Amino acid sequence: MVYPDTFEGFQVDSSETWTTFTKRETQQKLIRRQIKPKPFGDYDVDVKILACGVCGSDAVGGQNTSLSASAMKSWEKRPKVTLIKTGERVGVGAQIYSCLDCKQCKNDNETYCRHQIDTYGAIWPDTGIVSQGGYASHIRAHEHWVFPIPDALNTTEVAPMLCAGLTAFSALVRNGAGPGKKIGIVGLGGIGHFGVLFAKALGAETWVISRSHAKEADSLKLGADGFIATADKDWNEPHRMAFDLIINTANSSDGFDLQKYLSLLDVHGRWISVGLPEGAGQEIKSNMFMENGCLIGASHLGSRKEVLIMLQLAVDRGIHPWVEEVDISEQGCAEAVMRLHKNDVKYRFTLTNFDKAFTT
Amino acid sequence: MVYPDTFEGFQVDSSETWTTFTKRETQQKLIRRQIKPKPFGDYDVDVKILACGVCGSDAVGGQNTSLSASAMKSWEKRPKVTLIKTGERVGVGAQIYSCLDCKQCKNDNETYCRHQIDTYGAIWPDTGIVSQGGYASHIRAHEHWVFPIPDALNTTEVAPMLCAGLTAFSALVRNGAGPGKKIGIVGLGGIGHFGVLFAKALGAETWVISRSHAKEADSLKLGADGFIATADKDWNEPHRMAFDLIINTANSSDGFDLQKYLSLLDVHGRWISVGLPEGAGQEIKSNMFMENGCLIGASHLGSRKEVLIMLQLAVDRGIHPWVEEVDISEQGCAEAVMRLHKNDVKYRFTLTNFDKAFTT
Repeated sequence: MVYPDTFEGFQVDSSETWTTFTKRETQQKLIRRQIKPKPFGDYDVDVKILACGVCGSDAVGGQNTSLSASAMKSWEKRPKVTLIKTGERVGVGAQIYSCLDCKQCKNDNETYCRHQIDTYGAIWPDTGIVSQGGYASHIRAHEHWVFPIPDALNTTEVAPMLCAGLTAFSALVRNGAGPGKKIGIVGLGGIGHFGVLFAKALGAETWVISRSHAKEADSLKLGADGFIATADKDWNEPHRMAFDLIINTANSSDGFDLQKYLSLLDVHGRWISVGLPEGAGQEIKSNMFMENGCLIGASHLGSRKEVLIMLQLAVDRGIHPWVEEVDISEQGCAEAVMRLHKNDVKYRFTLTNFDKAFTT
Repeated sequence: MVYPDTFEGFQVDSSETWTTFTKRETQQKLIRRQIKPKPFGDYDVDVKILACGVCGSDAVGGQNTSLSASAMKSWEKRPKVTLIKTGERVGVGAQIYSCLDCKQCKNDNETYCRHQIDTYGAIWPDTGIVSQGGYASHIRAHEHWVFPIPDALNTTEVAPMLCAGLTAFSALVRNGAGPGKKIGIVGLGGIGHFGVLFAKALGAETWVISRSHAKEADSLKLGADGFIATADKDWNEPHRMAFDLIINTANSSDGFDLQKYLSLLDVHGRWISVGLPEGAGQEIKSNMFMENGCLIGASHLGSRKEVLIMLQLAVDRGIHPWVEEVDISEQGCAEAVMRLHKNDVKYRFTLTNFDKAFTT
């Protein structure tokens, strides 16, 4: 089989269409379209897609593009490529480019490269081509952003690990998660459930903090050591200054009493938000930090090095995310995105059966 | 001379009186009063005050008390006291008590002890007595909060170092200030000028970030390596991602474009506020942190251990804060506080000539 010049994928027309789409309760279809890839660069790899996770930002952001992180098979590569072998099973996450030359790139902070390009819905500055994600037959990517997948990992499970999983993992390791540390995960969604799995695998005592008790049983089944429901009266009192790190994965900050959450942190403990919550921001005042000298921050994806460490940890500790499979198709993509938008998934969708949808 | 049972000091009546006092442009006097000290505890030291710094919170907070950090001579001590010798020159800062038994106290985080008591305007829970600061003839304090002053340091200069100086020093050392680091100090007031002196002494490249160029000459004279005026057009652009740490000493957040300040931080750089700014808080959204994964926090005073290290650093590096002396008296206290409230001081007042004011 010859590698195609043009790829195929499922798209929405514009971010306006997308926003309308996710706000309506009616199911609309994504549209199947031909995709012209970026020119084949010296370090690029072409890969055929086998599975694709459905990202929270797919349900929020709205992209004129196909979407999300993927696990796939490398197909063809340019001669300068050394990191990937032809035919190897690989993955691509939510970032597709960084300059690899700046201070950030040279310090494993390529996620913060000023020239970084998202895998989907971003514009390649040299050609104006819009980057296209994994709701598609193929993808073209720089080898730095293509990761070999260890044999022991399941394709369906590893796909969302490259986006939601990495987001949780990088936030944890960059903020000191490990043995002897007590970690809270706010919100048990896609990223949150990876947060529990990885925090436990890293050896930390791990608690889930959720609005109600609805997800308590799942939390414990995932391995959490404890559970806090913020609907309970004086919920924070027994846990004051008990946590070293809290990863906030909540997808909205509406009605959030940040000060109560911060009261859970030990001296110089950290509140790290991941993902991009909808709704208004939070008002902060210096005296909110005075009781424990805590820090507030955010984390954005992770480095190639962290991807490789995360995948090996998943092998070593036998990590299995909870994944629901949906066939890739106009109908399947729409269903997955709509259900994700309503948090009706335990805890991540992976689009599969790409061979049925794409003949190329 | 016999140590008195009752001390004398200059006070305001209440925080309401104080707020009215500082908001008016007219100079009102503080009132000279008798002060009954707390009972003499097993580990307490009584000290005669020689000099007292005038703190920013004196000009803001309003306390039914005498105020501020002091340098003084120890006078009498209880038999269990081992850290202080009778007659030794000592200092007391803005914190007077912590339990010394909790996790925080045992980890040099006694500033964050839940039982901590401020030197002035706080209530001793066992007796209901209001703690009294250094606008007074004497003070009684637990030995943990009484610090021996190295001979090489000048009494007048060391007094404000125990409050404003420690606030800057602890924020710097707890957030990684040292060689190879680039540090910004926002606001050149009392704490800010200590920030410049200590950041330089710790070996960091140090810049002052101020609204106008008015304090540029002073900043360089204090040792700063560079100066940024936020009134300049696109002031942040040349300095994006250049700083590892920014200590925010600004006494108001009004009109503050926090996002521009945060853009100055390198990956995972920190924005640490000290002091308690007046006015409304800041609205934060997660995307403000996404460009560099920065952290926002605050810092509160410092530990005994940090005081002793700071004083030795001041000796070793010949640090001389810029201090204006004012006689302690009803008139002198009022003048110092009013001028500090208007930022009319370079850069800290120390009240002196206590022998003239108090005969005991």
